[in-house]
Amino acid sequence: MTSLDHPTGPAASTIETARITWSLIAEPTDGAALAVRAALGSEDALDLARHGTVEDLMRHLKGKVPIDDSDPAPARKDPRLRAERALARWRQRLATVRVEEVLDHAAARGIRVLTPEHPQWPRQLEDLEATTPHCLWVHGPGDLAELVGSRSVAMVGSRASTPYGEDTASSLAASFARSGGTVVSGGAYGIDAAAHRGALAAEQGATIAVLAGGLDSLYPRGNTRLLEAIRERHLLVTEAPLGTAPTRWRFLARNRLIAALSQAVVVVEASWRSGALSTARHANGLSRHVGAVPGPITSAASAGCHRLIRDEGAVLVTEHSEVLDLLPGGEPSGDGRYARQDELDLLSSSDRRVLDAVPPRSSAAVATIGQEIGIGQDEARSALARLELLGLVEVREGRVRRARPR
Amino acid sequence: MTSLDHPTGPAASTIETARITWSLIAEPTDGAALAVRAALGSEDALDLARHGTVEDLMRHLKGKVPIDDSDPAPARKDPRLRAERALARWRQRLATVRVEEVLDHAAARGIRVLTPEHPQWPRQLEDLEATTPHCLWVHGPGDLAELVGSRSVAMVGSRASTPYGEDTASSLAASFARSGGTVVSGGAYGIDAAAHRGALAAEQGATIAVLAGGLDSLYPRGNTRLLEAIRERHLLVTEAPLGTAPTRWRFLARNRLIAALSQAVVVVEASWRSGALSTARHANGLSRHVGAVPGPITSAASAGCHRLIRDEGAVLVTEHSEVLDLLPGGEPSGDGRYARQDELDLLSSSDRRVLDAVPPRSSAAVATIGQEIGIGQDEARSALARLELLGLVEVREGRVRRARPR
Repeated sequence: MTSLDHPTGPAASTIETARITWSLIAEPTDGAALAVRAALGSEDALDLARHGTVEDLMRHLKGKVPIDDSDPAPARKDPRLRAERALARWRQRLATVRVEEVLDHAAARGIRVLTPEHPQWPRQLEDLEATTPHCLWVHGPGDLAELVGSRSVAMVGSRASTPYGEDTASSLAASFARSGGTVVSGGAYGIDAAAHRGALAAEQGATIAVLAGGLDSLYPRGNTRLLEAIRERHLLVTEAPLGTAPTRWRFLARNRLIAALSQAVVVVEASWRSGALSTARHANGLSRHVGAVPGPITSAASAGCHRLIRDEGAVLVTEHSEVLDLLPGGEPSGDGRYARQDELDLLSSSDRRVLDAVPPRSSAAVATIGQEIGIGQDEARSALARLELLGLVEVREGRVRRARPR
Repeated sequence: MTSLDHPTGPAASTIETARITWSLIAEPTDGAALAVRAALGSEDALDLARHGTVEDLMRHLKGKVPIDDSDPAPARKDPRLRAERALARWRQRLATVRVEEVLDHAAARGIRVLTPEHPQWPRQLEDLEATTPHCLWVHGPGDLAELVGSRSVAMVGSRASTPYGEDTASSLAASFARSGGTVVSGGAYGIDAAAHRGALAAEQGATIAVLAGGLDSLYPRGNTRLLEAIRERHLLVTEAPLGTAPTRWRFLARNRLIAALSQAVVVVEASWRSGALSTARHANGLSRHVGAVPGPITSAASAGCHRLIRDEGAVLVTEHSEVLDLLPGGEPSGDGRYARQDELDLLSSSDRRVLDAVPPRSSAAVATIGQEIGIGQDEARSALARLELLGLVEVREGRVRRARPR
């Protein structure tokens, strides 16, 4: 058996062990850890963390670091201080961390760890580049790579949701799951929970909760049953090792995983300052389409969605088919299929009956149209002339067909 | 006195008389009339209508004709037949039309006629090019050119509106009128009426109803009082001569005038097939910005607005300031002013207090921030470091300022 068959067991390879170790000693937002990993790879970076000098580390902390909340401002201005603190931080944790114990503890609970070496590791996580997680902790029967590889949409939104938003989230999630898709969300109260519930109710497709804390203690407590149901049937995912409490910073970092694990993001309801908007922004940065559901302008819970549509290029989404259009290969918007349809409203009812008599996908003899709906030839011809002027039909050589959408 | 002082009286110039005559003998959608006018000008075109031959007219009916519902399809394929019918149509009306009588009749009712020679003729109507109206009939104390020249927005929508849409229309119209603007609409039931009412209630600014029929008989009947109030304080406008009933075709043609008389169009509520969408499309063609107000996805009355935003590039509008942004020189959308604001939601309350202590438009000494809100220096510095990482503040040489929006 190769290490790939036992990636979390005693036979975990050196590289896997190194990645898991990094996840145990550094926060997802530890910029120094990400920088040294980007420069050296997980294994050599870990060697440096264990045995390197401050100067060794300093060489790799030049340039832009993606995220960093681990050092106070003075350290970030002083590369030496920064390197000293990072080494001290890592070594303090290295002194007590026991990878095998952690893996045994996880395995006892049924929690698995995935690294890029694992066949269930989704390749799309590499879109995160320097902020790719060291590893992911997953719990549940689902195969992560399979669940998110072909048809996955994040449905996210405010915790302070309205019944309108919750109904919409459930219903879009249920339709998407019924189409065989995976609904990714954050397991939070409000829109996230409604999306998970809708997907679970569909009895098809799947739903994944991407959490900010360790999988040994489900958060938020009020969603325990929901998260347990997801764990039982599909999958819980996090980059936080067991025993890690969800913090504000970890929620922010978690949002990038929701975006990366999805092929598109739909924000169902979000207040002006909702964290769901950061998920949308991550999706944008990862070249995923972002959709947002509108609502009444009088609802504060929709203000963030309106802002995404208005100012940040999100596609307005009103129904299931428009969620599908956000997936790769879809037509997210602007296809103008119905660009003339409104004028139908102003047609007389007899003209509309004539239009309805024109077959949608083939042509008909002009002479038969009048017969079909019981009006005179001349009347039918005049109606068709009006319809042709509006670009709704095309008449050629005595036959009429629906005009192609302009 | 020049003819400009008496454009509608006995001293109306030949060109003015010619234009008015055209408005009496040809529908706004008479493509043959528009084509011959475009080729020869109103006066020579009228000469041709009176005395020309079929061959004379045929020469000017080549090429694209903007609108044409006057001829049945066979005539449009046979240029000779088309010219014969147009001449016959015009001459039949010329035989009975008496311009002076019509003008006297209008003047007796207080209805004035505007042509491009009149100082109250809005220059922006020329954006309509070949479909510029021959003349406009106006009723009320307003100066049309002045009312629509600097700050005019069309607010239009479905007749079948909801209380949500009506409230929104009234409130946006009232705010716009209070800012000194002119609210242009179509005088119809539903959103149009709500917009007019909101503007009237503002007691500032103005509102103009652009109607599809003659001004001697106000339509729809149920809005008579509203239209009378507009006529008393501001202005009713139409291109239809007195005695003309509003028809479906005239409503379609009228929509282009609403668009041309406005600097932007806001669709407040529109069903999937609402005629308001044709106004939006005209506005688009005339390079006016189009805005649309979103609503619940469960409301059929908002489906057309959602479609405009989703598929036709309309800007999502939720409040008065966003209406103003649609005007020339405004920033209709995508300015990203609040692009980072959502992350504030995830700040701890103490970090947010620190952020609030940073002055919005100047800088402050880092040392004073902690004092101001009663926390320790170190605590304040750590908070500022976190805020700086989020790009919310910039710390330089001991002073902190709000970061410029990215």
